[in-house]
Amino acid sequence: MRNPIITLTTDFKTKDGYVGAIKGVIKRINPKVEVVDVSHQIEAFDVLGAAFALNNFYRYFPRGTIHLVVVDPGVGSPREPLLIKSEDFFFVGPDNGIWSFVYQNERITEIIALTNKKYFLAEPSSTFHARDIFAPVAAYLSLGIKVGEFGNPAKECFKLIIPEPELKRKVLLGQVIHIDHFGNLITNIGAELLKNNQIAGMMVGTKWIKRMVRSYFEIPENQLGVLVGSSGFLEIAVNQGSAQKVLKSRIGTKVKISFK
Amino acid sequence: MRNPIITLTTDFKTKDGYVGAIKGVIKRINPKVEVVDVSHQIEAFDVLGAAFALNNFYRYFPRGTIHLVVVDPGVGSPREPLLIKSEDFFFVGPDNGIWSFVYQNERITEIIALTNKKYFLAEPSSTFHARDIFAPVAAYLSLGIKVGEFGNPAKECFKLIIPEPELKRKVLLGQVIHIDHFGNLITNIGAELLKNNQIAGMMVGTKWIKRMVRSYFEIPENQLGVLVGSSGFLEIAVNQGSAQKVLKSRIGTKVKISFK
Amino acid sequence: MRNPIITLTTDFKTKDGYVGAIKGVIKRINPKVEVVDVSHQIEAFDVLGAAFALNNFYRYFPRGTIHLVVVDPGVGSPREPLLIKSEDFFFVGPDNGIWSFVYQNERITEIIALTNKKYFLAEPSSTFHARDIFAPVAAYLSLGIKVGEFGNPAKECFKLIIPEPELKRKVLLGQVIHIDHFGNLITNIGAELLKNNQIAGMMVGTKWIKRMVRSYFEIPENQLGVLVGSSGFLEIAVNQGSAQKVLKSRIGTKVKISFK
Repeated sequence: MRNPIITLTTDFKTKDGYVGAIKGVIKRINPKVEVVDVSHQIEAFDVLGAAFALNNFYRYFPRGTIHLVVVDPGVGSPREPLLIKSEDFFFVGPDNGIWSFVYQNERITEIIALTNKKYFLAEPSSTFHARDIFAPVAAYLSLGIKVGEFGNPAKECFKLIIPEPELKRKVLLGQVIHIDHFGNLITNIGAELLKNNQIAGMMVGTKWIKRMVRSYFEIPENQLGVLVGSSGFLEIAVNQGSAQKVLKSRIGTKVKISFK
Repeated sequence: MRNPIITLTTDFKTKDGYVGAIKGVIKRINPKVEVVDVSHQIEAFDVLGAAFALNNFYRYFPRGTIHLVVVDPGVGSPREPLLIKSEDFFFVGPDNGIWSFVYQNERITEIIALTNKKYFLAEPSSTFHARDIFAPVAAYLSLGIKVGEFGNPAKECFKLIIPEPELKRKVLLGQVIHIDHFGNLITNIGAELLKNNQIAGMMVGTKWIKRMVRSYFEIPENQLGVLVGSSGFLEIAVNQGSAQKVLKSRIGTKVKISFK
Repeated sequence: MRNPIITLTTDFKTKDGYVGAIKGVIKRINPKVEVVDVSHQIEAFDVLGAAFALNNFYRYFPRGTIHLVVVDPGVGSPREPLLIKSEDFFFVGPDNGIWSFVYQNERITEIIALTNKKYFLAEPSSTFHARDIFAPVAAYLSLGIKVGEFGNPAKECFKLIIPEPELKRKVLLGQVIHIDHFGNLITNIGAELLKNNQIAGMMVGTKWIKRMVRSYFEIPENQLGVLVGSSGFLEIAVNQGSAQKVLKSRIGTKVKISFK
């Protein structure tokens, strides 16, 4: 029997000891669970960034893994604390959009609004639900407590409106939805949209990029190129440099793919 | 039988491999111990910051956890290397003030100055006691070696002078003692001081804040508010922004609470 | 029987979920392996920085530890993916110079170019070999698969030209090869070169430093000193400050030791 896994993804950084508190709460409830740090470096309050990061890693973990994600600008507000069960995984965190890609890509079997205080720390604060609600719930879940024990089925869940690319004649209109720490610009254009088409080039802002490549090293150093990135989306990169800096782009920057 | 836990808190960052060396030393001495990262992002040489972070997390861990904390501007100086045993935990690191809150909040049962070289790495350096002294001591401790084996009772221990708030008539004078990475200003005014009083407002520098709230979301976006934070102290926050930036405060900034 | 260990060292930061994907891949293949974070904060594309960090920690781990290091500006290029076995450790990552100190300091017994796709993820990308090639190879290796199974002996391996110090009469010429996060300047002058000599001082750029010390605290605050650092090399430090900032040095800055 292998030990259960809880992954942690937050925007807490680590210097204040907040992440330490979360880990302590979990290990005290279930000493056998394995806690795996994914990131505590999500930009503060960046719900979309957390959703995107989650989409990059969750499916690689063993079946039954519990993914705890807390980027929670609305802590203490009426936004529900959630436990989501899909066919393969569990997800624990606030109902604020961080699960948007999960709803898109997973077969969800149950969504529970966390209300059963038996599984919270005593006297939960209204400023630190990660420690007082989400961490203990994830830990009790890893002990085998049934999903339905934690609360009641949730009625409506919040989804970020992640823009869909639009096809207009021979032009595909999309936008940048994530910028990774190398400065690669990741768009909302999935690789599958390109399958039966030959690309003439991509316009980013006012810059026309013709270089379509398979890997970063095919781009001459410090030049721009377009490729299908490891997340399965079209991405704009500079070899050993930052496309974000070269193009001064940001989340939402429009891109246009022209087909031949 | 669960495995013992050693938590790690340092100002080493990780890029130089120093933290890797600490983990290797520990795992080589006790392969079964579980090493839990709390933080390696404490500001360089920030002893008070380490003490505050420690206070935020240590008590949530299971009984018997060993907390290794190394922010050590005086490495190689005559400051003692310490092992502290309280009723519930062990603490290992330099005698320079990082244990100030522990001394305040824990029942201490033993304090040992580490002198027994049998439990150090051979030929310890005078620049990296974390690797050569503290890590191996923590690892041997996790194997069940008795506290008294590691050295002799320490006579005097260093405590930071953590300022106490002062009550003058209907005004409570305090100060900022920590700024978390969200920019929340955490004061030395504990929640218990407010119990039987109604607050009229708080003065921070020259700014008067009347908004007393229970959670961040009750503050209008980008406005200031005062609440009891998750560490149990009064804190000044901006909803989805940084109170530190808005108020240009720093550690030591004076605050005044007026009671009705 | 203790569980095998895989250490992780990358320049991926953590915010994009890339490191999470690596950990998931490993845990899915071998749930019993212990994954130990060394660093994900290596400067982007800094192969020498990764090589230096590795040299600071690898030897402290238990025999049999697998060190996975991925700083890989040439991902997708013809640079080989490697598995290196030494008497005590395994090393997995690209053939781009990150193993330079390992080749210098370890007895290498086998070097394998990874070609056996059986041990890769299905359809490996050409942008993320850490997830698709290196992580699964390390995980299968931790299950006990024989080194020779993963590919064919590699013929030539890439080594960084790490400059050697030169002795000219009573002057030793060296240079800065690493700057740690405290701002200490670490040179290529090993402690063993100083054994039978008395040092008169060190010239860094145009600055003459006479203060030879054993530990940082012997240097007056904010002054410069020279000492043998924990990596075994001569290093220039400022007590509770940054020598890098004071001297405006960088990797490659020349230093001169004068002997008496």
